Amino acid sequence: MAINQSLTINSPRLHKRIEDLSKIGRLGETGVCRLALSPEDLQGVQLVKSWMEEAGLTTRIDAFGNLIGRLEGLDDQLPLLMIGSHIDSQPYGGRFDGVIGVLGALEVVQTLTEQGIVPQMAVEIVAFCDEEGSRFNKGLFGVRGLTGRLEEGELERMDGNGVTRRQALIDFGGDPGQFAASQYAEGQVGTFLELHIEQGPILDSLETPVGIVTGISGPLWLTVEMTGFAGHAGSVPMSMRRDALVGSAKVILALHDLASSEPGAPTVGTVGSLTVFPNSRNIIPEKVTFTVDLRDIDMDRRDRRELQLLALLDRAAQEYGLTYTLREDTNSEARFCADWIKKVMEEQAGEMGLSPPKLMSGPFHDSLTMSYFCDYGMIFVRCKDGISHNPLEYSSPQDISIGTELLYRTAVHIASQGAGRD
Amino acid sequence: MAINQSLTINSPRLHKRIEDLSKIGRLGETGVCRLALSPEDLQGVQLVKSWMEEAGLTTRIDAFGNLIGRLEGLDDQLPLLMIGSHIDSQPYGGRFDGVIGVLGALEVVQTLTEQGIVPQMAVEIVAFCDEEGSRFNKGLFGVRGLTGRLEEGELERMDGNGVTRRQALIDFGGDPGQFAASQYAEGQVGTFLELHIEQGPILDSLETPVGIVTGISGPLWLTVEMTGFAGHAGSVPMSMRRDALVGSAKVILALHDLASSEPGAPTVGTVGSLTVFPNSRNIIPEKVTFTVDLRDIDMDRRDRRELQLLALLDRAAQEYGLTYTLREDTNSEARFCADWIKKVMEEQAGEMGLSPPKLMSGPFHDSLTMSYFCDYGMIFVRCKDGISHNPLEYSSPQDISIGTELLYRTAVHIASQGAGRD
Repeated sequence: MAINQSLTINSPRLHKRIEDLSKIGRLGETGVCRLALSPEDLQGVQLVKSWMEEAGLTTRIDAFGNLIGRLEGLDDQLPLLMIGSHIDSQPYGGRFDGVIGVLGALEVVQTLTEQGIVPQMAVEIVAFCDEEGSRFNKGLFGVRGLTGRLEEGELERMDGNGVTRRQALIDFGGDPGQFAASQYAEGQVGTFLELHIEQGPILDSLETPVGIVTGISGPLWLTVEMTGFAGHAGSVPMSMRRDALVGSAKVILALHDLASSEPGAPTVGTVGSLTVFPNSRNIIPEKVTFTVDLRDIDMDRRDRRELQLLALLDRAAQEYGLTYTLREDTNSEARFCADWIKKVMEEQAGEMGLSPPKLMSGPFHDSLTMSYFCDYGMIFVRCKDGISHNPLEYSSPQDISIGTELLYRTAVHIASQGAGRD
Repeated sequence: MAINQSLTINSPRLHKRIEDLSKIGRLGETGVCRLALSPEDLQGVQLVKSWMEEAGLTTRIDAFGNLIGRLEGLDDQLPLLMIGSHIDSQPYGGRFDGVIGVLGALEVVQTLTEQGIVPQMAVEIVAFCDEEGSRFNKGLFGVRGLTGRLEEGELERMDGNGVTRRQALIDFGGDPGQFAASQYAEGQVGTFLELHIEQGPILDSLETPVGIVTGISGPLWLTVEMTGFAGHAGSVPMSMRRDALVGSAKVILALHDLASSEPGAPTVGTVGSLTVFPNSRNIIPEKVTFTVDLRDIDMDRRDRRELQLLALLDRAAQEYGLTYTLREDTNSEARFCADWIKKVMEEQAGEMGLSPPKLMSGPFHDSLTMSYFCDYGMIFVRCKDGISHNPLEYSSPQDISIGTELLYRTAVHIASQGAGRD
């Protein structure tokens, strides 16, 4: 793919910052462990904060632990343009997940200023606190705080060492007593933009550097427990067995086939976790517990697939003499990107000589929460083999630069024209 | 089923002893925990030893920890008749497993004496040491010692508390320095008989109290590891997945179908243990490790089923883009009961008004080792729902009495006629 124009953004500066930030919490040669609210997270936030200030932004860390850098616009009464992502990582994470969305946003605003562009509305760059959720087993904390979506008891959640989120947040510099003051009002943000690595293999397989996100497909998360009857593997005839693992195997294959049944559809279905009881080589499995993860951008199709799965689960239970229980852990709806933002991105990409594919996001992002608060748009950057949440995660500097340039051009368009909600 | 004759054995005495022994190491209302070489095991052995002496036997605990009671015969040069089983239990065990074979044998010899019958050859009753193998993760210790089949390093095996078998055996009263003296010579035992609960559901489903064992089907134990590629459950399209759990599910179903393919055949196939890596609900399984347990009394058929399974494993790996490794952990041959003993049992049962079904044993027993040393025969007693290795294990007093009576009549026949090897 030929890029028509040279880049406006400062690529060397961007990649130097990505490199420098990756040294904080470095894991092996290429990995990162920068758990939310850890000393490494704070060190990273302080470094990014210093770069924001270098770029002429006013900065603060709010009560939720979010780092926010602000560039004033011509009219501060206008709903603001917010751009960002997160810099906390998985325990065995990569250096690009979240990071390119924060440092890309910073590069966008710094270039804007250097180009002498004064935006119509104020522009804010955010590194949201604890997107990953690994440490306290619940993520999107900062963005939910900022938009007034925290739940009861979140501050009392404990990490593996018995530290509460409350304590960790206070140690980090946050302030549970000041949450109300840090919360944004409805209408205060007009548009949210996020640049992120794809964390999937589609762009890599299409050999294209960036893609425009159509929406985030909310997962349906179920936990299934199938129960049969244990017995000696050597003595119970096949015809008399009630083997919970055989029934579960039938359901695992059924889910795979159902999710694959419409070629080209973005439906995905996964059994990622499974445990067997008593899990002994010469005892027939009595109980098997497994998770179901079913996603689709088309909620009607997802609902259809769910019903088909439940019918097959019931049939498998009957066939193998099992009982089962079903628990719904999460049932999120798909959240779509604003059409007008996708259109701006498409036009700007066209001017760059790109025709990026449109694709949905399976994983969630800070954008998912922002979608309930304002219009949002996302740009995905190709990552090698689709690997993420792993030190092997890799996006090339060139691809990240192209994604950041598209983010820049999109932001310039919005900042010049005002948010273009149709 | 009408039993033609009243029983010769002393049922109340037999059941009183079973009840009394169950109090040693009792677990809850019905269970037993009498781990091999534990203080409870020793207490149980001492109690059984006192009953043997009460019955007029000369007793000893040999160097391997086996308890042996001996009744002299008319000609001590004849190969002896040995009857027995074990009294050690699983950690979460029942009160009948092994026990009825030892106390049933004692009842047989005591009745023999009371009936004034002097056997042709000496009769020995044995409670073999550590049949279960739970504590040191390797069973059939005593019977393998007595028949010269111990392996290198067995005494150095440690239990969960770091105690070696050597130390436990010495504390129990065994003597590793005197193994040679306790070992039996080839030809010294003519016949071995064992009464045991079925540990399977066949007799219960046939509503019949006892069965005649045709042989012990040796298991083929494999460990399979299938490897695909991890990825985010939300972002990797179905067509690009290499999901190790989906491939494994295919193999689990294939094994079940293969083992079930010949209706009425005693083939059994089980995946009892399975683990998933990384076992996270939103990550596609990268690696799945599972066990295969395949048994059949017909070794040709077992071999055929194994080859079919391996072909299907290979096909599943190809279909889902996986690699796999295969490890053979155990490959035991089936060991058949002596035809002449089965015939004696059948005739004797007929005289009792019974026509017991013939069935193979999936689980192994002390008889498995004895099969390499002399002719052997086994009688199975029905157990409720086939449950064993569980406090819920249950065989009715009546069934146990019928099994013991059949054991008595078989022993009387052999002891009167001499071992009838054809």
